[in-house]
Amino acid sequence: MKRSTINKSRLENFSDGVIAIIITVLVLAFHIPEGVDINTLSFTELLKSFIPQLVPYGISFIVVAVHLVNHHILFKQIKDTDHTFTWLNMFFLFSLSLIVFPTELVGKGHNLEMATKFLVSMYFFKAVTFQLLSDYAVLRSGLYIGNKTRKERRRTSIINWLRGPILEVIAFCLIYVDYRLALGLIFVNTLIYLVSYRRL
Amino acid sequence: MKRSTINKSRLENFSDGVIAIIITVLVLAFHIPEGVDINTLSFTELLKSFIPQLVPYGISFIVVAVHLVNHHILFKQIKDTDHTFTWLNMFFLFSLSLIVFPTELVGKGHNLEMATKFLVSMYFFKAVTFQLLSDYAVLRSGLYIGNKTRKERRRTSIINWLRGPILEVIAFCLIYVDYRLALGLIFVNTLIYLVSYRRL
Amino acid sequence: MKRSTINKSRLENFSDGVIAIIITVLVLAFHIPEGVDINTLSFTELLKSFIPQLVPYGISFIVVAVHLVNHHILFKQIKDTDHTFTWLNMFFLFSLSLIVFPTELVGKGHNLEMATKFLVSMYFFKAVTFQLLSDYAVLRSGLYIGNKTRKERRRTSIINWLRGPILEVIAFCLIYVDYRLALGLIFVNTLIYLVSYRRL
Amino acid sequence: MKRSTINKSRLENFSDGVIAIIITVLVLAFHIPEGVDINTLSFTELLKSFIPQLVPYGISFIVVAVHLVNHHILFKQIKDTDHTFTWLNMFFLFSLSLIVFPTELVGKGHNLEMATKFLVSMYFFKAVTFQLLSDYAVLRSGLYIGNKTRKERRRTSIINWLRGPILEVIAFCLIYVDYRLALGLIFVNTLIYLVSYRRL
Repeated sequence: MKRSTINKSRLENFSDGVIAIIITVLVLAFHIPEGVDINTLSFTELLKSFIPQLVPYGISFIVVAVHLVNHHILFKQIKDTDHTFTWLNMFFLFSLSLIVFPTELVGKGHNLEMATKFLVSMYFFKAVTFQLLSDYAVLRSGLYIGNKTRKERRRTSIINWLRGPILEVIAFCLIYVDYRLALGLIFVNTLIYLVSYRRL
Repeated sequence: MKRSTINKSRLENFSDGVIAIIITVLVLAFHIPEGVDINTLSFTELLKSFIPQLVPYGISFIVVAVHLVNHHILFKQIKDTDHTFTWLNMFFLFSLSLIVFPTELVGKGHNLEMATKFLVSMYFFKAVTFQLLSDYAVLRSGLYIGNKTRKERRRTSIINWLRGPILEVIAFCLIYVDYRLALGLIFVNTLIYLVSYRRL
Repeated sequence: MKRSTINKSRLENFSDGVIAIIITVLVLAFHIPEGVDINTLSFTELLKSFIPQLVPYGISFIVVAVHLVNHHILFKQIKDTDHTFTWLNMFFLFSLSLIVFPTELVGKGHNLEMATKFLVSMYFFKAVTFQLLSDYAVLRSGLYIGNKTRKERRRTSIINWLRGPILEVIAFCLIYVDYRLALGLIFVNTLIYLVSYRRL
Repeated sequence: MKRSTINKSRLENFSDGVIAIIITVLVLAFHIPEGVDINTLSFTELLKSFIPQLVPYGISFIVVAVHLVNHHILFKQIKDTDHTFTWLNMFFLFSLSLIVFPTELVGKGHNLEMATKFLVSMYFFKAVTFQLLSDYAVLRSGLYIGNKTRKERRRTSIINWLRGPILEVIAFCLIYVDYRLALGLIFVNTLIYLVSYRRL
């Protein structure tokens, strides 16, 4: 018999805390760009220097927020946690925290192609760890308490792999064309997720 | 039928967490002003260099605190969350987090007119997202469980638009006269809010 | 009739969150002292440069922790919150957050007399706001649900004023003799608090 | 009779909050290494400069996560808190927060032998405070509610001292051979902990 190391609501609470901190700590990356003289800056120029920082911040914010919601939906489908689930969850939080640094890097605006590659790699990493967590919980752990059949859950898992990690791979390839295409794809994918969810 | 993505108390908890972090992260902006030699500073000079940083920090602190309270009052009036509410709430938290950077900028004390314009713009933005969230919850979502009639709620909404976003627009215009007038107006408005609430 | 703006457990939860962040954010102040060449530093030299930073960090950590405990004891004695209590509590959290910057300043080790004056001023400020909160809750609000008589509560209040704000004033005066005396007094006072509490 | 200063679930909640912040604040240490020109960096070079920072971050993350889980297991075995337990817990959180700075230092990559010594010292410190907390709770406080005999608990305590503080001492000694051996030992020990736990 497996023992749960941390009970479900505690682990969810802790995860919520970490996600809340990650999403807020992103904001500490905003800065006055180097070489900009703040004393002679006009308001328009300030906004112009702010928006390139706002784009990666906004995308990372929404990406983390989507994961928060998906994390909650996942927790609703399981009856308890076990040792493996707890540690896959830690691993997911770890990978999610790695988004902070490349987001800051893209916001800095130097060498944007390389910085975007880094950011998308980290997006890919966190998408993989979330899918591993989700697959373990729903398919392998015996903790599942939803009302989908095994076959339906397998199908959902495949769709999520395509909409998550595989899409990040495509985004990564797009960077070789133009890094803005990659960020655009991730943004549009998130919007589709938000709108299509609503239609259900 | 709409499904709630995150249950109400979880979302409130998460929002509280993010707001708590925003309100505390503001404090990281304090710094020794450039060009000040800390080794020869007297205590009076230190306080003199501290107070211009304290003013924007204090105003932003109280602005965020007012939103925390209003956020709680809003949550008391709804029976559950739905998908749109969840994401309007995320959008509000996003806009609230944008206060951190301009607050720091005003605290830095260079080009204060421009920095204040930036700060008030962000105040305006968060005031708008909060009103959108509030209007959706109270007027459009069907989640409302308070005892006000539809007409009363419409009236309250209009008053809140005037006391929130519209006031920020006025404050923004005042910056062209003097940025201190703008900050003063926002501060006085908050005090009136605090005192008048008590009288009720 | 007064209405509670935020219910008691929510406000306590939010305060806990802010205090948890303040206590942890203090740790971000640690740094390699300027002028120290990290590449040639020995382990002993590193520890030597670390300890002057550890002292103010440790004292501020324990001061905040004492307030956390006292805050909980206070909340146990009241049945609900009201508008004034909520905002006095916000004011207390605000003043508590102001400890972060001077703690960092003392840790920097320049001009220690002045930095300690600043730190003790902020300790004084937060001690005052806590006493105001406590006095309001216990003596004036009608929210008190403990079993002490009014007279006993008055006496406790006076003792707390002496052990809190007044002691900080004495510590401030001691800085003119030696800033280490001031920090020592605050530390010893906290230890006495910890030990005497246990004896009860 | 001892009185509990903070009730058990509050203290656990607060500790969870602090641990969540510590684990996330670690991520703020990532930076572009000095002397690296970001404008001409290739993606491979970026990853190469990122991985030496990732190693200490990853190890500290997992070390903190293990303590989170052990902290929960500890709280499950006690019926309440008392004054001493509360303050030993604060002391443990204090020592845990001290991990942040040396982790950053190791990530900076200068003088790695000395930085690793510092990090392992702090690991040792937090291991000791956790064992003190655990021993007090399980052996001395009378708060224990598990079903192990006193003798079994003593034995568990000795094993934990060996797997915790004593192992850090061995790791510290290994630094004189090669700092990578020390980090490797701590990492392997954690993995063994994770795998052996699962086998039980």
